[in-house]
Amino acid sequence: MKIIKYPSREKWAEMLKRPVFDSAGLEQSVQAILNDVKQNGDAVIRKYALQFDKAELTEFAVTVKEFGIAEMECSAELKQALKQAKSNIEKFHLSQKEEVKIIETVPGVECWRKSVGIERVGLYIPGGSAPLFSTVLMLGVPAIIAGCNDVILCTPCDKDGKVNAAILVAAKLVGISKVYKIGGVQAIAAMAYGTQSISKVFKIFGPGNQYVTCAKQLVNKEGVAIDMPAGPSEVLVLADETCVPAFVAADLLSQAEHGSDSQVLLISDNEKVITDTLAEVQFQLRVLSRAGIAAKALENSRAILVKDKIEAIELVNEYAPEHLILACKDCETLAEKVINAGSVFIGNYSPESAGDYASGTNHTLPTNGFAKSYSGVSLDSFVRKITFQKLSKQGLEAIGKTVELMAASEGLDAHKNAVSIRLKRS
Amino acid sequence: MKIIKYPSREKWAEMLKRPVFDSAGLEQSVQAILNDVKQNGDAVIRKYALQFDKAELTEFAVTVKEFGIAEMECSAELKQALKQAKSNIEKFHLSQKEEVKIIETVPGVECWRKSVGIERVGLYIPGGSAPLFSTVLMLGVPAIIAGCNDVILCTPCDKDGKVNAAILVAAKLVGISKVYKIGGVQAIAAMAYGTQSISKVFKIFGPGNQYVTCAKQLVNKEGVAIDMPAGPSEVLVLADETCVPAFVAADLLSQAEHGSDSQVLLISDNEKVITDTLAEVQFQLRVLSRAGIAAKALENSRAILVKDKIEAIELVNEYAPEHLILACKDCETLAEKVINAGSVFIGNYSPESAGDYASGTNHTLPTNGFAKSYSGVSLDSFVRKITFQKLSKQGLEAIGKTVELMAASEGLDAHKNAVSIRLKRS
Repeated sequence: MKIIKYPSREKWAEMLKRPVFDSAGLEQSVQAILNDVKQNGDAVIRKYALQFDKAELTEFAVTVKEFGIAEMECSAELKQALKQAKSNIEKFHLSQKEEVKIIETVPGVECWRKSVGIERVGLYIPGGSAPLFSTVLMLGVPAIIAGCNDVILCTPCDKDGKVNAAILVAAKLVGISKVYKIGGVQAIAAMAYGTQSISKVFKIFGPGNQYVTCAKQLVNKEGVAIDMPAGPSEVLVLADETCVPAFVAADLLSQAEHGSDSQVLLISDNEKVITDTLAEVQFQLRVLSRAGIAAKALENSRAILVKDKIEAIELVNEYAPEHLILACKDCETLAEKVINAGSVFIGNYSPESAGDYASGTNHTLPTNGFAKSYSGVSLDSFVRKITFQKLSKQGLEAIGKTVELMAASEGLDAHKNAVSIRLKRS
Repeated sequence: MKIIKYPSREKWAEMLKRPVFDSAGLEQSVQAILNDVKQNGDAVIRKYALQFDKAELTEFAVTVKEFGIAEMECSAELKQALKQAKSNIEKFHLSQKEEVKIIETVPGVECWRKSVGIERVGLYIPGGSAPLFSTVLMLGVPAIIAGCNDVILCTPCDKDGKVNAAILVAAKLVGISKVYKIGGVQAIAAMAYGTQSISKVFKIFGPGNQYVTCAKQLVNKEGVAIDMPAGPSEVLVLADETCVPAFVAADLLSQAEHGSDSQVLLISDNEKVITDTLAEVQFQLRVLSRAGIAAKALENSRAILVKDKIEAIELVNEYAPEHLILACKDCETLAEKVINAGSVFIGNYSPESAGDYASGTNHTLPTNGFAKSYSGVSLDSFVRKITFQKLSKQGLEAIGKTVELMAASEGLDAHKNAVSIRLKRS
């Protein structure tokens, strides 16, 4: 990690730069696969499954029998863990339900909005070396709470046509029965356009490699909604003399192990905190199974010494981290000053991993500075809030003149007339 | 309007098709302007203002003096109307504020989320023949309620460098003081990238012609958030024998006058309702100032006779209209069955124009079937919901084992370690 001491404000932009990945180079090949699936459906999905996953598939849907085998393969401990995580995620996302409130803006004019689940949603879960079954909970739980009618899940299988057992157990646990053994760009295409065996969805969620990300962007341009734009994962830890350097180091490493393009930032107003934490990072790194990846990510990473907490929080808001850990004595006060972040972890006993798995908050969060304009996934992501209004004759009389005047001033006579014709009959 | 009687279900998709506009042909010329502004800033904006708006500009910002002149030019009646509309929009959008609720998912694990206004937002308001000052209220009111720090507004000026007075009065009324005389693609570019005189924003809102729409799509791909994908405006009226055909006709026409690419649909289970309404449409059309545009839009439009209300509502949900008017005796029951729509108008005294201007609901709504996956603009559109969590030692102990197990099963040792290292110190 590069140490930067007391950077001047002009240097912030350069210092906070993220590793850039330009997907433009992939677009052509990704678009070709999308088009192919759009035109040829299931047949070419089989072709790509053979090409990319080395799997010879006849059926895509995971069978009841396969769900049963997965249940048996999954340890009782892991099942118990999934249940606790699900229960917490459920509690927090249930609290995001919105009651219908009827607002009478003027007597006789009632307005309200109602959350209605998106009818058909598709979840993409990467498989391979890191089967993210935790993401099945993070996306599946709110989808089910939202009342989405049709929730399908695509995930690649191994060369024997097998899907990771924990992914299937998690899917069943949240109530998703339609799981398809399709990965990569072809999965995004199948969900976006529909094929003989997969029905088209209206919104696609989930992480993926650069090809999947590019495919999501391209189908989004065609009108299929997606959860949010994606980028490499990142954490920013703001620590002062009350932190435990070993804890901070562990948090930095837990982010760094995600991928060589991950970025971790440490900000402190105390030089010893930085020195001690970086020493701990080196010490802990040695025994990690993904030490190579983490070491590579640390090369993109920075420890920044600032003059005080005010400057520190300004830097936080400028960077807009996906994850922000506040390991400071005044962490609650600092948390109130956060304007741009995906999710905030407060105090020495709130590691990012808690939120990644089981505290209850969602782990699908805006990366790459997108926290400046996007929220993480929540119940909101799975509903539309439809507005309703009901005017009585009296209500229309109360606002009728306003509507007529504004419509006429905008040059929209027919808009005006829709009110006038009603008022005349009064 | 084409009349279709008792269409079979296989014909629905064809019958519900929208007028298609493919912006791909524009992309190159729009991208060129975007790039030009990105590289050359203010200077080329002046060039484009001269080219497209025939205006020779030195400064873009509307001055205090110009705001003052607009105040004088705007009639007292229109000002009063704007105030009533603003007050209603404010009441409804204020009701969308979310209280912070702290959820203790397990003892010692507290999770909550907080809505924080997007720091910098840009509103685009078309000028020219239809100066949409009502949209200034619809976007400006929630932006200010959300607490967005910096709200800027771009709108084209006429050849004398003048902005429509009502647009300025509406801006001032909601509390927006930064108005720039910039229109078209160059306005979107200025807000997306920033120039010498305009600061970059994080999210862009507002309607526009096909060039503006295309520009919004392209900057969105580069990471600037936008309100929603756009398409021509539309209304679907579901009417039965209790409707007033003259009212329904007025509603259809108020949508049709928006543009020749607008689409209006009438659905009824009663043939006389259709016949009478279409006769009324012809009768009312004659006196409209925008009769030519409306007549053209009616060519794209359909009246559909169905066997009953159940089929009618299925058709509604399949079409997913931007605006849905229910002029039926059982309109409240039917409203509960609506799954896909932007905004719903219930009963004979709830014309679409009421919501377009002054009832309180937002008029920036998903068109083109996007109501299947997108909501209209609301307070939510101007905030991010940041999640927070605070775990006590006891809280981490309660979920620690779950996190450790899940992390290890996902092959993420460092994630596990961030918990283990804390539990060991307990």
